[in-house]
Amino acid sequence: MSDALIELRRRLAEVADLENLGQLLAWDQEVVMPPAGAEWRAQQRATVERLAHERFVDDRVGELLDTAVPESELDRDLIRVARRDFEVARRVPGDLVEELAHASATGHEAWLRAREDSDFALFEPALRRNVDLRRRWIACFPEAERPYDALLDHWEPEMRTAQAEDALARLRDGLVPLVAAAPPGDDALVHGGPFPNDAQRRLVATILAQVGVEDRRWRLDDAVHPFAATLSPGDLRLTTRYADDDLDSIFSTLHEYGHGLYEANIDQALARSPLGTGVSSAVHESQARLWENMVGRSSGFWRWCFPHLRAAMPERFGDRTWEDVHRAVNLVQPTLIRVSADEVTYGLHIILRFELEVAMFEGDLDIPDLPEAWAQRTRAYLGLEVPDHATGVLQDVHWAEGLFGYFPTYALGTIVSGQLWCRLGQDIPDIDERFAAGEFGPLADWLAEHVHRYGRRLTPTEVVERATGGPLDPGPYLAYVRAKLAGASARLIA
Amino acid sequence: MSDALIELRRRLAEVADLENLGQLLAWDQEVVMPPAGAEWRAQQRATVERLAHERFVDDRVGELLDTAVPESELDRDLIRVARRDFEVARRVPGDLVEELAHASATGHEAWLRAREDSDFALFEPALRRNVDLRRRWIACFPEAERPYDALLDHWEPEMRTAQAEDALARLRDGLVPLVAAAPPGDDALVHGGPFPNDAQRRLVATILAQVGVEDRRWRLDDAVHPFAATLSPGDLRLTTRYADDDLDSIFSTLHEYGHGLYEANIDQALARSPLGTGVSSAVHESQARLWENMVGRSSGFWRWCFPHLRAAMPERFGDRTWEDVHRAVNLVQPTLIRVSADEVTYGLHIILRFELEVAMFEGDLDIPDLPEAWAQRTRAYLGLEVPDHATGVLQDVHWAEGLFGYFPTYALGTIVSGQLWCRLGQDIPDIDERFAAGEFGPLADWLAEHVHRYGRRLTPTEVVERATGGPLDPGPYLAYVRAKLAGASARLIA
Repeated sequence: MSDALIELRRRLAEVADLENLGQLLAWDQEVVMPPAGAEWRAQQRATVERLAHERFVDDRVGELLDTAVPESELDRDLIRVARRDFEVARRVPGDLVEELAHASATGHEAWLRAREDSDFALFEPALRRNVDLRRRWIACFPEAERPYDALLDHWEPEMRTAQAEDALARLRDGLVPLVAAAPPGDDALVHGGPFPNDAQRRLVATILAQVGVEDRRWRLDDAVHPFAATLSPGDLRLTTRYADDDLDSIFSTLHEYGHGLYEANIDQALARSPLGTGVSSAVHESQARLWENMVGRSSGFWRWCFPHLRAAMPERFGDRTWEDVHRAVNLVQPTLIRVSADEVTYGLHIILRFELEVAMFEGDLDIPDLPEAWAQRTRAYLGLEVPDHATGVLQDVHWAEGLFGYFPTYALGTIVSGQLWCRLGQDIPDIDERFAAGEFGPLADWLAEHVHRYGRRLTPTEVVERATGGPLDPGPYLAYVRAKLAGASARLIA
Repeated sequence: MSDALIELRRRLAEVADLENLGQLLAWDQEVVMPPAGAEWRAQQRATVERLAHERFVDDRVGELLDTAVPESELDRDLIRVARRDFEVARRVPGDLVEELAHASATGHEAWLRAREDSDFALFEPALRRNVDLRRRWIACFPEAERPYDALLDHWEPEMRTAQAEDALARLRDGLVPLVAAAPPGDDALVHGGPFPNDAQRRLVATILAQVGVEDRRWRLDDAVHPFAATLSPGDLRLTTRYADDDLDSIFSTLHEYGHGLYEANIDQALARSPLGTGVSSAVHESQARLWENMVGRSSGFWRWCFPHLRAAMPERFGDRTWEDVHRAVNLVQPTLIRVSADEVTYGLHIILRFELEVAMFEGDLDIPDLPEAWAQRTRAYLGLEVPDHATGVLQDVHWAEGLFGYFPTYALGTIVSGQLWCRLGQDIPDIDERFAAGEFGPLADWLAEHVHRYGRRLTPTEVVERATGGPLDPGPYLAYVRAKLAGASARLIA
């Protein structure tokens, strides 16, 4: 192997280690750190992020990328992806990065206060600063055809705003009438509680063991805002949250398992390199939503899981059936709050935010007009009136922290999950029966083979096209929703 | 502040952050990491250690140390200590550091196998390699008067071998006759169990809360080999171990609390700098042994603690008194194994190892003769015959990992703990009564004021002399042991 290639691999491995270390610092802070550690931890995280950045954007890395001689396809992929990352990372000057981080922290503070008082004006200056700084960030990428392209590309490499607009408009136009016509129902069976904490924990442990989580590689812990962290291919950590009055711990855990399993199944030859992680936010989210929804709300899953649920909480479920639970966890009913939205209306919450982001950065939507634009779209897409800012435009943390271009990846991930699910149904026609038998291995193997193992060796578009046989298309997801709602209507009539 | 001083502080803060991260990686590995993470974690730890080293020994740090203009006593201390560390860190070439690390890992493997078979010959080649490499390491410090000075200075800055020999010989000559004449007794009350695990946990939690551990800054977790880790001034982590058949969890926890409290009380203005940690291994160990022994085996402690012990384990302690427990935890009785030695004989185990280390590096003790030298000293100091290598020369991991010069700091710490205890008795004459009332704050405050707060601003010698009023002296510790044994004899006669 050429010296340059060896040195390049070593450098990239160091940066990958530092990035995994950043995940450890974050996991530790959310899960185990004593609270008085917070201010020091912020400095430790800043040090690791700065070092990872400095070591990567060093001129020497540029020289190595130019001189390293690839000896395999893997080397070629490594150099191509590392070069792309390198060029992006060198675009943004260090002082802008620091200003963005500072504005993010102060924006978070301002948002907390504004949300408490439901007062959008309190939040306006911080949001304006975040938008202005992000415009300066966009200006670092003058080759972007549209300003929003730069934002989107950061999370969804090579995706263009026009593509996202097209796919999400088709999703929106399909979902709005479906939601409006969704059959009424009642999910009181899985809401309102009490669902004893220890019973939920036992049930979640049973589910994770069945889907393939082994203590040798995985952990599950509690966190206020659930997330998954990958510390290495041998160290995968999920978090979840147990509420007394709902069973969301099941869906939250499956969601994070989807993220974790993606990272777990990446070819280990890619570890400690920029190739060794998920390819994009949307593809990652597709895995999370597939396990949360396509698996976790399927009839097969509940045929397998219901006896365990009944055994864990016999008072509540002793005289109920799997069909009762299956119906309750599939209810479609618009709500004001994104994070408590059902599977189907969730996409509309995202599309609303995406459209407003594009309008803020490219259109004529001025910040003071944001609440009204929010209210209008909530009415149009969900049929609901927004009573105050706290349950409207102030409900999410993303914009407070200067995070723009990320929201659409949630809905793009949903679209991809629909395409994967459709293809899975062709390759494993009896998948629902397999779930009913407690067999989740065939699904996990299929995903490993068609999506996970590549890491970043393929582009997001290549991953989707190879796995699903075609380009980004909301059709399969809409068909999946239509079938689900038709089933619910049929049950209602019957 | 001069630009050079600002840059120097920033550089040193970065290195301090990386060192704390190394502690997090170690803590996480011992306490929470899934086992399959081990091989990757080793690489992550190597990356962080290499980066911390590289960033510190950089030529630029040398320039900054030369040009930074101190503006305060604190700055002067910072530059002095950083310069000393810098000069030491630059002495040892990188390839020797790597060889030492590799020999340490393979030595550990060889030791595990040799100990299992109780076969010293299996261990000899690895030990010889560790000794040879350490001789090369010693050669990097040609200004050392004696070879062992370089080893000792690494753990106990500015301590000379001659000083350690003098202090430890006096300690040995005092302890050997005291141990030989120690009154017989029986500690079956606190050994043999069963001591229910959950009862021990509740008791340990009660003790920690009473001595001053708050959840806001501290954690307590389980670990196979207990240790303390300081992740920041706001994040102090203790570990302990619960065995069914003894109450060592109490003493192990107090020991680690002694280490943790030292770090917790260092002036926070010294954080994120080389001044912001304990000054030496011996002074650190003095804190651990003071809490483990002077506190944990005092009559005052057991007058306070006994009702909690009885409430936690009423079957065993319902009809016993605090005096019964106090007597049992203070029994002096020679054993072959260092880690299960009592408070008093422990020092003799250490002195034996120190003398053999000095003879290996400076005298004519050849490695094949080590077992015989071990057996001779065990006979002379403890009055015991060594039946096999596993319970003799192969019992400790230190030499297997190439760790030489560290053992004596355990006994030097014991000596310092005796001097501090003597001074404490003058400053707080009713300290035993305070313990009996559950008041440990006066002790903690005294230690913070006289030892902890300085961090590394003073030298170890300065810390000991200011706190105790004199130089290193085993006299007070021997007096403490004599008084304890006299009390035990008096009880025996009465």
